[in-house]
Amino acid sequence: MKQRNCMIGQSGGPTTAINASLAGVIKEAMDSLVFQTIYGAVYGVEGLLNGNYIKLSSIFNDTQLLETLKLSPSMYLGSCRYKLPPLPKNKDTKISEYEAIFSLLNALSITDFFYIGGNDSMDSVMKLTSYAALHQIPIQFIGIPKTIDNDLYGTDHTPGFGSAAKFVATSMLEIIHDSMFYNTDSVTIVEIMGRNAGWLTAAASLARSEGQAAPHLIYLPEVPFDVASFLGEIKELRKTTQNIIIAVSEGIHDKDGNFIDDGILDMGEENNTVSHKTDAFGHVIHEGTGKSLERLVKNTFGCKCRSIELNVLQRCALHISSKTDLEEAFWIGQAAVKASLSGASGVMMTLKRLSSSDGSYQTEIETISINEIANVEKKVPLSWISKSGTDITEEFYEYLLPLIEGEVTTHYHNGLPSYIDVCHLK
Amino acid sequence: MKQRNCMIGQSGGPTTAINASLAGVIKEAMDSLVFQTIYGAVYGVEGLLNGNYIKLSSIFNDTQLLETLKLSPSMYLGSCRYKLPPLPKNKDTKISEYEAIFSLLNALSITDFFYIGGNDSMDSVMKLTSYAALHQIPIQFIGIPKTIDNDLYGTDHTPGFGSAAKFVATSMLEIIHDSMFYNTDSVTIVEIMGRNAGWLTAAASLARSEGQAAPHLIYLPEVPFDVASFLGEIKELRKTTQNIIIAVSEGIHDKDGNFIDDGILDMGEENNTVSHKTDAFGHVIHEGTGKSLERLVKNTFGCKCRSIELNVLQRCALHISSKTDLEEAFWIGQAAVKASLSGASGVMMTLKRLSSSDGSYQTEIETISINEIANVEKKVPLSWISKSGTDITEEFYEYLLPLIEGEVTTHYHNGLPSYIDVCHLK
Repeated sequence: MKQRNCMIGQSGGPTTAINASLAGVIKEAMDSLVFQTIYGAVYGVEGLLNGNYIKLSSIFNDTQLLETLKLSPSMYLGSCRYKLPPLPKNKDTKISEYEAIFSLLNALSITDFFYIGGNDSMDSVMKLTSYAALHQIPIQFIGIPKTIDNDLYGTDHTPGFGSAAKFVATSMLEIIHDSMFYNTDSVTIVEIMGRNAGWLTAAASLARSEGQAAPHLIYLPEVPFDVASFLGEIKELRKTTQNIIIAVSEGIHDKDGNFIDDGILDMGEENNTVSHKTDAFGHVIHEGTGKSLERLVKNTFGCKCRSIELNVLQRCALHISSKTDLEEAFWIGQAAVKASLSGASGVMMTLKRLSSSDGSYQTEIETISINEIANVEKKVPLSWISKSGTDITEEFYEYLLPLIEGEVTTHYHNGLPSYIDVCHLK
Repeated sequence: MKQRNCMIGQSGGPTTAINASLAGVIKEAMDSLVFQTIYGAVYGVEGLLNGNYIKLSSIFNDTQLLETLKLSPSMYLGSCRYKLPPLPKNKDTKISEYEAIFSLLNALSITDFFYIGGNDSMDSVMKLTSYAALHQIPIQFIGIPKTIDNDLYGTDHTPGFGSAAKFVATSMLEIIHDSMFYNTDSVTIVEIMGRNAGWLTAAASLARSEGQAAPHLIYLPEVPFDVASFLGEIKELRKTTQNIIIAVSEGIHDKDGNFIDDGILDMGEENNTVSHKTDAFGHVIHEGTGKSLERLVKNTFGCKCRSIELNVLQRCALHISSKTDLEEAFWIGQAAVKASLSGASGVMMTLKRLSSSDGSYQTEIETISINEIANVEKKVPLSWISKSGTDITEEFYEYLLPLIEGEVTTHYHNGLPSYIDVCHLK
């Protein structure tokens, strides 16, 4: 019988769940007893170009280590933001990148290739699948979704999103509490990740589950941002609300597509333009979306205003991950191996939300053709945004709520979470 | 027997442990059976000027609610940044603020006053104590320390610091993991709270307990910051280290006292000045310490550089609090009541670290005269900073480590921590 080995890679930006998916693939691949060696591509497909890989089956024969991997942030295998070149028109055209990758896969007798990533990574899966088909190379390719942005098409949601949403909602709740202790008017602006899609910013609304009215305004990139309307909303709110909390996506922009953080917003009530102040090197100074709006509010209302950028903790604060998310991430990794062993290839694994009679949350795992979803960006449907453009609908809230359910039990040592060592990346 | 009532207030900025101290005072005051009514000043002494108070003994006859209070961020009683006027020279001089406060305390038959706060709050305790002595008013005043800055004199450390330190160390560990997954050179700058004292920034070093070399450089405000040396250190590190992690205090400044975030650092390798770019309103744009250094590093080395401001989550992310800290905060609240019942007044409660033969961490609670500590700022001793000025000593590390030990068990509902309702502040 022909030797069967598999290769796993991670690509794109991290989530706190991407290592759980890796653990799921390793676990199922080991338990299947089908694979002789389980390889890991170090730094994704870009690493493979340089022959950079490790033997995961030798490292993870320790069950405890696999548990630690499941509960570790960042990307154990490293990552890349590398776009494979366009596919050759016919099988006789040689393209060095594909030659190098398939030569390595052949040398390692790889039969199954699992790639965990977002939109760009699914582009790689699609190209590798097509290249293999063109050259009749018998390797199966399976894409496993992940992204905190939740912008992948064909899946109810993406692994990694629920944990980022839980961090955003928890931080928002804590920031709301932190905004109420002085007896003075204030505006707090919380800047949340999501350049083009507002899924994660919308998760700020979950802080209301504790009976809070805040966040009072939520701005997603799907709705054009208008400075005058923004100031009008705050002016109105100030009549009834002492401490105003606002969630904004980093990617908000005006109707012409100009991002708020394109430069430094030079503003007054009648004069709002983005100017491009430059430093000694002639580089434009980007003040940031939150900081620009903070200055706008201070200048307009003269009240206390602060902005808080949640920053990369949204994608790496594993200690406050969603249990639902990490479990789904693990399962989808396992399911990818099962799908490959059943003969699937050129697909991405997807999560399908089931409708249950008692309203409880359930999902099942399916597959979708990689050609249908690669390079398609899923934005928040406008029907899930309130007519005012400053809030989300009840339906959207109900969609979000189950995704942050459950807490993970991280092991602590010396007061800190114990995460896996990634010394092979140094 | 004369009726005995007590008043509790909170003041200054929040910590995640300040409500635990409030819970400790309430618990001990109730258990003592000495007090008929336990009052809470809403918005500190400033609230008392407006007659703003609540009856804590009516609210917290529910034990479960007291547990929730112990594990809630922000300040249940609200806060103020209010400085009492200078004391009158003699008892015949009337000062309206003192008249108003003592008139209210008298009307409520207050005999014991507990004030939880930092440096400025201890100034209030000192003045109220002196005023009462001058007028022979039989009220005892006890200060209970809290601050994430750890800059109070007379105590080994302050309640609230350990939890902020645990958040900083955990975030730093997660950011370190997040910085290593691309195979490219990078510099990550993490900006940490602490305008004048570097205690909290030093806590970033605790991320090394997991065997990390990072953070590679730590800059505290106690050491004058020099741009050329900073660039020199990075240049040297880049020879051996792909992903450099730097912790900086928000309050770093040059030898002449100019803060890095005074304006926008206009910089090159030979031209480093802080310029004061202004917006349309003529207000100076503050870029922030981390953002300024980020641009400096990008411009100098052309490598990927990002800055992360940990921001207010340092003082409000209760879900990742230190158990050691919250327990001490509760105990010191209880001890304050015991001290008052023993006749103490005009003192601040302190934590004393005991030397134990087995090296285990133990503290006991003592008191110190309020006159000795009010308005004295405790900075990091220079002997605890390495000679290079870019790291801390082993002794400092050993001091910090036990303070972040232990995790709290927060109750979750709908995927979020359940915190106490503070609707009385609206």
